[in-house]
Amino acid sequence: MNNFIYDIPTKVYFGEGQIAHLPELIRTCGKRVLLVYGGGSIKKSGLYDTIIGLLKENGIESQELSGVQSNPKIESVRQGIQIVREHQLDCVLAVGGGSTLDCSKAICAGVKYDGDPWELVLDRTKVKACLPLITILTMAATGSEMDNIAVISNPETQDKKGFSSYGMFPKFSILDPTYTYSVPALQTAAGTADIMSHIMESYFDQVRDASVQDGISEALLKTCIESAPVALKKPNDYQARANLMWAASLAINGLNSLGKNRAWTCHPLEHVLSAYYDITHGVGLAILTPRWMKHVLNEQTVDVFARFALHVWNVDPQLDCWAAAEEGIARLYEFFVSMGLPMTLREVGIDESRLEEMAEKAAESDFSRSFQPLTCEDILEIYRASL
Amino acid sequence: MNNFIYDIPTKVYFGEGQIAHLPELIRTCGKRVLLVYGGGSIKKSGLYDTIIGLLKENGIESQELSGVQSNPKIESVRQGIQIVREHQLDCVLAVGGGSTLDCSKAICAGVKYDGDPWELVLDRTKVKACLPLITILTMAATGSEMDNIAVISNPETQDKKGFSSYGMFPKFSILDPTYTYSVPALQTAAGTADIMSHIMESYFDQVRDASVQDGISEALLKTCIESAPVALKKPNDYQARANLMWAASLAINGLNSLGKNRAWTCHPLEHVLSAYYDITHGVGLAILTPRWMKHVLNEQTVDVFARFALHVWNVDPQLDCWAAAEEGIARLYEFFVSMGLPMTLREVGIDESRLEEMAEKAAESDFSRSFQPLTCEDILEIYRASL
Repeated sequence: MNNFIYDIPTKVYFGEGQIAHLPELIRTCGKRVLLVYGGGSIKKSGLYDTIIGLLKENGIESQELSGVQSNPKIESVRQGIQIVREHQLDCVLAVGGGSTLDCSKAICAGVKYDGDPWELVLDRTKVKACLPLITILTMAATGSEMDNIAVISNPETQDKKGFSSYGMFPKFSILDPTYTYSVPALQTAAGTADIMSHIMESYFDQVRDASVQDGISEALLKTCIESAPVALKKPNDYQARANLMWAASLAINGLNSLGKNRAWTCHPLEHVLSAYYDITHGVGLAILTPRWMKHVLNEQTVDVFARFALHVWNVDPQLDCWAAAEEGIARLYEFFVSMGLPMTLREVGIDESRLEEMAEKAAESDFSRSFQPLTCEDILEIYRASL
Repeated sequence: MNNFIYDIPTKVYFGEGQIAHLPELIRTCGKRVLLVYGGGSIKKSGLYDTIIGLLKENGIESQELSGVQSNPKIESVRQGIQIVREHQLDCVLAVGGGSTLDCSKAICAGVKYDGDPWELVLDRTKVKACLPLITILTMAATGSEMDNIAVISNPETQDKKGFSSYGMFPKFSILDPTYTYSVPALQTAAGTADIMSHIMESYFDQVRDASVQDGISEALLKTCIESAPVALKKPNDYQARANLMWAASLAINGLNSLGKNRAWTCHPLEHVLSAYYDITHGVGLAILTPRWMKHVLNEQTVDVFARFALHVWNVDPQLDCWAAAEEGIARLYEFFVSMGLPMTLREVGIDESRLEEMAEKAAESDFSRSFQPLTCEDILEIYRASL
């Protein structure tokens, strides 16, 4: 494995009722907070009232930025920065899923930067300081609660880009599985696909001798495969929701990619789709991943896919490596189908018309250190196979 | 799973050559350091000279405490505290295995305490502040490089006790697998048994629904089973040493026991043996663990042992749960034998004579929340079965 530095500074409060810690956590950052959230779901669930009650009881002043959309837009980031500056707020409290958290990270970085925040997205080295961020997660998916990455969309340029900086790690994250009970089935399934994709982006990597990390990846994948169907069937199953939630955090907090190349493939391919068509990120990943796997299955990769099949999907150990590899890819596809995910681009409104344009955009990413390097033609083939 | 807080503050620099970071790490703590080490192995390997060279080049003043023994004694802690106070040192640099690191943690805590440091071992709530600690690990075993626990022996009272406090986490740990190339075969084997015991202490636990954590435990155990034989055969195999080293850290940094009861069994049983007979900790664990497993295998536990057998030892999935459980325990025993470990108490110089006395001492620990509660009689039976 490559050399690495382990440094995951986010402190996580995990479990039912951990929100009781919120006031003491905010107090370590200051007394004035920007509350960021998306639509009305936290109002419907009562979480909003709980939070406002805790803030009031503890004399914490708050301002609000609501309406953060999925695939969060740079415009929301700009709005948040303006509110923080106007009211001289001390920290940001993000309540929601990955979009709300990512938008909040960009706000935390943008507040300390004089120029337009989109410049930070384009060049993360410009991030010099960040406001502290506290998150309360309401959906298991992106892992944004324990990493320092924010993915922001710019509708004007049809860009969707990730950027990261050490200061963008949440200082504290409150993970209460009961807040995910109300996540609808399709979002639960899409979130699971996103978690699994994060794990597989690290697992399918040129570095193949990191046994601890790959074993952790396999354990996390198996947790998703066991827990998601339970959560879909019984949305209020605490243990299933808890295991999915913790798997989501560990899938991308760096643990399973330490000492690996960290050169992702499917995410950059999907980001272009959701930038052009605003589709659900996890759905895009579910559609692309099995097609990408088939595309890169070859003499060099077959052993890795066979291991994936054996350790994650428990395929018959008697199968030869090619049969095992193909069986593993088929099992992944069937699993996504079983969760009710649409599995073709056409089903989510994407047709042939802009595939070439999107492939060219995606090919701007650097795939040279990926599990298998991809050219523009490769990407186009994967997109076409996904129609 | 139970509620938990994830908070692992140690920053780890992992890989060959990471010692280059040492001066910058010390500088974050001050300019005067206590260098703590054991016997002469770091002089023979050249590591001592490398460190002294780096300190001198960077104008860092150092004092030394050498001769820290295995099962580190409270007297070494007292000596270290005195040197730190006399020379007004800013931090401690521990270079060695678990004993050196544990002794150093106790020094860091003891320096800030007015009374005798044994009082801190007996009552960890008395630890109020700690000097910063940097570690350079030379052996994969105890995981002390990434946890906040110190186990200290007091020959006067024949006690060997662990204590912990948040401030006792190392601030930085440098993990270079090449430093473990020179670890002798028996120590490599005993270290592996210690790592595996840490993992199993968390795995065999009353909390059975923490799928992520148990999956990580299984992955870590499999890494030990794969890597230790390679390291024993080829002591300079970088990947085997690296995987063992990283498994050792994750085995006990809390990751695989989050949300579990954390009520260990075999360690308290072994601590008494090594307090009375000063045997190698990992050897004691290897001898006791399979006997403990047989003792607690029953209707309530058989499924857990069967899962252990299936997921860790890949036993035939067709076996019924009892046969699988017994096969898993036998495979663990055989694995310890295959590494060349002595597998009876008599072989390490322990006979019948003090078993009852030691069982009474061990029974002072609280086993009520352990995987299976143990009485003094249970412990005596396990000791006898280990003769």
